[in-house]
Amino acid sequence: SSSEREGHSSTQSSHRLLAYSDALISIIATVMILPVAHTKIKDDEELKESLQQLLTTKIAVYLMTFLIVTVAWAAHIRLFQVIERIDDCLALLNLACMMLITFLPYTFSLMATFPENTLGVLLFCTCVIVIGLIQAIIVVYGFSRPFLLNDQIQISENQGFYKRHILKVILRVPLFCLVAIVFSFIFFPLSYVLLAVVIFFPYISQSLKWCRGKAIGQQDETPDSMLFYSYRPNEPLSKERVEAFSDGVYAIVATLLILDICEDNVPDPGEVQRRFGGSLIEALQGFGPEFLAYFGSFATVGLLWFVHHSLFLHVTRTSRLMGLLNTFSLAFVGGLPLAYELTHEFPPNSRNELEAIQISCVIIFFAGVFQLAIWVAALFDERETLHPYVRYGGRDHAFMLAKLAVYPCVALATFFVTCALSRFSAAVFHLAQIGVPVAFLLLRLLVRLGLALLRRLLGPAAAP
Amino acid sequence: SSSEREGHSSTQSSHRLLAYSDALISIIATVMILPVAHTKIKDDEELKESLQQLLTTKIAVYLMTFLIVTVAWAAHIRLFQVIERIDDCLALLNLACMMLITFLPYTFSLMATFPENTLGVLLFCTCVIVIGLIQAIIVVYGFSRPFLLNDQIQISENQGFYKRHILKVILRVPLFCLVAIVFSFIFFPLSYVLLAVVIFFPYISQSLKWCRGKAIGQQDETPDSMLFYSYRPNEPLSKERVEAFSDGVYAIVATLLILDICEDNVPDPGEVQRRFGGSLIEALQGFGPEFLAYFGSFATVGLLWFVHHSLFLHVTRTSRLMGLLNTFSLAFVGGLPLAYELTHEFPPNSRNELEAIQISCVIIFFAGVFQLAIWVAALFDERETLHPYVRYGGRDHAFMLAKLAVYPCVALATFFVTCALSRFSAAVFHLAQIGVPVAFLLLRLLVRLGLALLRRLLGPAAAP
Repeated sequence: SSSEREGHSSTQSSHRLLAYSDALISIIATVMILPVAHTKIKDDEELKESLQQLLTTKIAVYLMTFLIVTVAWAAHIRLFQVIERIDDCLALLNLACMMLITFLPYTFSLMATFPENTLGVLLFCTCVIVIGLIQAIIVVYGFSRPFLLNDQIQISENQGFYKRHILKVILRVPLFCLVAIVFSFIFFPLSYVLLAVVIFFPYISQSLKWCRGKAIGQQDETPDSMLFYSYRPNEPLSKERVEAFSDGVYAIVATLLILDICEDNVPDPGEVQRRFGGSLIEALQGFGPEFLAYFGSFATVGLLWFVHHSLFLHVTRTSRLMGLLNTFSLAFVGGLPLAYELTHEFPPNSRNELEAIQISCVIIFFAGVFQLAIWVAALFDERETLHPYVRYGGRDHAFMLAKLAVYPCVALATFFVTCALSRFSAAVFHLAQIGVPVAFLLLRLLVRLGLALLRRLLGPAAAP
Repeated sequence: SSSEREGHSSTQSSHRLLAYSDALISIIATVMILPVAHTKIKDDEELKESLQQLLTTKIAVYLMTFLIVTVAWAAHIRLFQVIERIDDCLALLNLACMMLITFLPYTFSLMATFPENTLGVLLFCTCVIVIGLIQAIIVVYGFSRPFLLNDQIQISENQGFYKRHILKVILRVPLFCLVAIVFSFIFFPLSYVLLAVVIFFPYISQSLKWCRGKAIGQQDETPDSMLFYSYRPNEPLSKERVEAFSDGVYAIVATLLILDICEDNVPDPGEVQRRFGGSLIEALQGFGPEFLAYFGSFATVGLLWFVHHSLFLHVTRTSRLMGLLNTFSLAFVGGLPLAYELTHEFPPNSRNELEAIQISCVIIFFAGVFQLAIWVAALFDERETLHPYVRYGGRDHAFMLAKLAVYPCVALATFFVTCALSRFSAAVFHLAQIGVPVAFLLLRLLVRLGLALLRRLLGPAAAP
């Protein structure tokens, strides 16, 4: 073809295409929190009940969408770890793939709203089938122009083996979906089971293989085939893309509340004239809690980003397991604006306000704990994954641990204090929010003081 | 201090901090289109009138916000071209700065809704003053730890000169704002004039200097001071950040409509039962135009991104002028979802529908033309800014030009065809939308055919 004759001149680095895809996917993964956040809770209802009745479905949709979109994102990373360079044709195919991925949340919320109706399953499966076919076309196209491939595959003599292996893994998904479509007409609930299987199939088959290996003591596949599409927890994951995706999620989440504020909280000039006698300041005072919630959630998300940034600065190589823990942390981060919005929806000192504050604490706690888990997972294989400074015994090890521990500790402490002193819950919560940025500013000093104190306490005991 | 003693160990690359800032700023610049898009236009009104009455203020707010946020972004780029490495303290200061920048759109919409009230100006000026002071602190902090600075400044003997020059430029803005605050109490309209001056001051003073230079033939400043904060059109601009910012805008704009769809277009189960006898397909058919608008706007934004990506792949160095043209292009891209949403709001073949389609064409045209203008601006200085392949006479020169010309030409053609054949306007518009992706896929072939044809036509004429 004409494009092949020109060879490498039309070839491009895939860096920016991947950054753009990461931005799109991170937006789509996060925005399903909006329908949850915009659910109006009436003042007379108890938060617990209204949560159970109104929000459970929507929160489930948000979490499942987040999961499915991140699965699609992981597949996208695998694909473009094989195909490292692109040309115009691949860029256009990728855009078509992105368009379908951004449509997935809608089909998913149809499935959640009408669980008995086949249409949601049909739409979802159709999207997934087309995405799978486009990815297969990308693989075939890539292997027909080997200069687009990963260098390791390019020099490998097993190109045919790689191609078959990758196509087999990719085409399994559309096949399962086709079966799910057929079953949706025969016996409906089975199609949901099939869809769940298709998402987790590689992980299930991998764990089965691992168990069988442990039981029989059988050898694994050839190491050559392990590099791509292996679905092991230590399969390498592009660190750049994990960072880009996380940045996208943190950025969207940090700005979600200001979008609402800009749209809803500019008072109407006529109403200001009528109700507040033309005094804009008085009219805005009613929005005070909204602004407080905005600054609080921006600061929390910003500081969680800061911790994430500090951690990944010292990570030299990310594994799939770290990516999974990161996804869990991000799913909780995505719930933060909702939690902050709840904290100001209720009258001061009400039971609802207390519960909203405690929910915020729980969300912050889990977002922070999963960040800590990334660090723990990295420490298990520290020679491969961490910079020497932050390994056991490294001079920034304690400092890094302190950074990661600030949010879980503060959230936990705030939670228990609000349980004990429920009357002052709002004050305690706001105090904690002001305290955290100060703690981060002084953290290096505090850690040094803490270490010196520990050494003085433990030193005499160890000396004799 | 403790941080200085440890020297370079706590120093970090600023790459990810800047990517995160770009993501935040691009979201904030774009989302002010949402209040415009959510303005409901009643069917009985004429689009022209309702546009004039309802939308003009909001569109003005959107454009001015986009302008001001991009000015803040340009200042942020200047700052972090001087300070190339960061530490924890700078990262936290930058987050504080970001929080205030994301709040600017709100103060601005207050100013637009209550132009007679001083509160908007006060809030806006306070934000800008605090942002300026934080930037000044960042500069002072950076110069007190020279290893954080740009390498050129680090080895320069004029560090003190640089510091004074940069602080002078940065602190001019808060000073002007302070004066604007004072004038807002004395003579109100003058404060708006002052704010306009503060935004354009560097450009005004630069043009004045240029005019004086032309008139008197005076020499410019020392070349040493020109590298940073010079405000000339050929001042270098970080290409990476222009790309990151553009990616953010394109990604948000591409997904704006799906956000609306996910939130508003999942039918209520009770209503489906009542109105459509339980048939979900019938209920969804009413949303058909919304889905069409979504896919149309996603494809258009995606392909405009594709053109932008192709262009910047061959750009080796960006100037401030190219950045400015890029900003204009992005401002129109931000208006696209609004235009697409309008195209399906009106009854088929109505005058309103025709006008909505024509507005879409105009927006696409300008978005494409400003991309073309970036290319023209780059060609003026092609040895510095462009890859040899796409310079005059390069083998991809015609191809690049064709890529950039597709959207302006199609938009212009569609506009005139809909003027002539107003009855078929919707059909023509949708046909154009399907045609463009095909055109991009076949473009290389088409350009080669066109060039061969041109050569055959011009060849005989040139030969004798």
